Amino acid sequence: MRILGIDPGLRVTGFGVLEKHGNRLQYVTSGVVRTGDGTLPARLRIIFESVAELVDTYRPDQAAIEKVFVNVNPQSTLLLGQARGAAITALSVGGLEVFEYTPMQLKQAVVGYGRARKEQVQEMVTRLLTLTGTPGKDASDALGVAICHAHSGETYAALTEVAPALAAKGLRVKRGRLVGQRGV
Amino acid sequence: MRILGIDPGLRVTGFGVLEKHGNRLQYVTSGVVRTGDGTLPARLRIIFESVAELVDTYRPDQAAIEKVFVNVNPQSTLLLGQARGAAITALSVGGLEVFEYTPMQLKQAVVGYGRARKEQVQEMVTRLLTLTGTPGKDASDALGVAICHAHSGETYAALTEVAPALAAKGLRVKRGRLVGQRGV
Repeated sequence: MRILGIDPGLRVTGFGVLEKHGNRLQYVTSGVVRTGDGTLPARLRIIFESVAELVDTYRPDQAAIEKVFVNVNPQSTLLLGQARGAAITALSVGGLEVFEYTPMQLKQAVVGYGRARKEQVQEMVTRLLTLTGTPGKDASDALGVAICHAHSGETYAALTEVAPALAAKGLRVKRGRLVGQRGV
Repeated sequence: MRILGIDPGLRVTGFGVLEKHGNRLQYVTSGVVRTGDGTLPARLRIIFESVAELVDTYRPDQAAIEKVFVNVNPQSTLLLGQARGAAITALSVGGLEVFEYTPMQLKQAVVGYGRARKEQVQEMVTRLLTLTGTPGKDASDALGVAICHAHSGETYAALTEVAPALAAKGLRVKRGRLVGQRGV
């Protein structure tokens, strides 16, 4: 099963694609879409068309997106809502089922700790997908929500599946932190 | 010049099309798109595809949309933002320039009074476009923002153009209220 994760934003939208083979996750691609300095409609169009192109190119089976915590600044919430609307529309028009996860679910699934910092998500995404470099925060969050979906599926078995996957890589998590590799 | 006005909402999106011939406005069509009880992605898709279909069918030259006042409830602001994002994306992907107006600008242009009630907007939209029936509030707001754009254009000459148009119809506006027809 191929999963597209999206972390939408009006300036920068992160994306990440991975495949789930049983309990094993395989990295396919990740990156960001930058919308430049155009008008709001121009930027929303870039988000929509870029996400549509990702769907066309990578043919994912399902999509996952982060549920946002509403911002204290209502104007920012509105702007983020619009960016999110453009991204979800592209996924939906592309025929994909879209699954939503809270930041806490994402962190719980990826780091094993719902209040983990962004850096911990980046580190664990890098390890879980055996990446040679660390993806940026937006791409990392997009991969994170894809991992979260891979490990929850329709039901939710997040940690029970992440833990063996980690063990298989010789990694150990203690209180949400990666504490070292077995025998290292 | 043909103008498409949109009043976006997650449940109901109003639309209205009119033509501007000099100072004269001609009604083309109006109505609402209802998104039903589906998931968020399904509803956004309905908004996007419906607006895209309106663009295809009526071939407007420009589009106008109401700038929203952010809601006191951040969750509502986010939902509205997403609906708005889907609608603006459809307009932008359809190649239209999108103009935004505040509710106050709309009311000022249509009723002549920035704090007018919804009912006054409905009444004035009906009169200005010589409609035989009164459109619903969502369609009326969509027609209102199209009228607002028609009378502002790139510059803004809203009232100076609305007043003669009203006078030509034998109508008079006093403090934002339609006070009667000449000779009636």
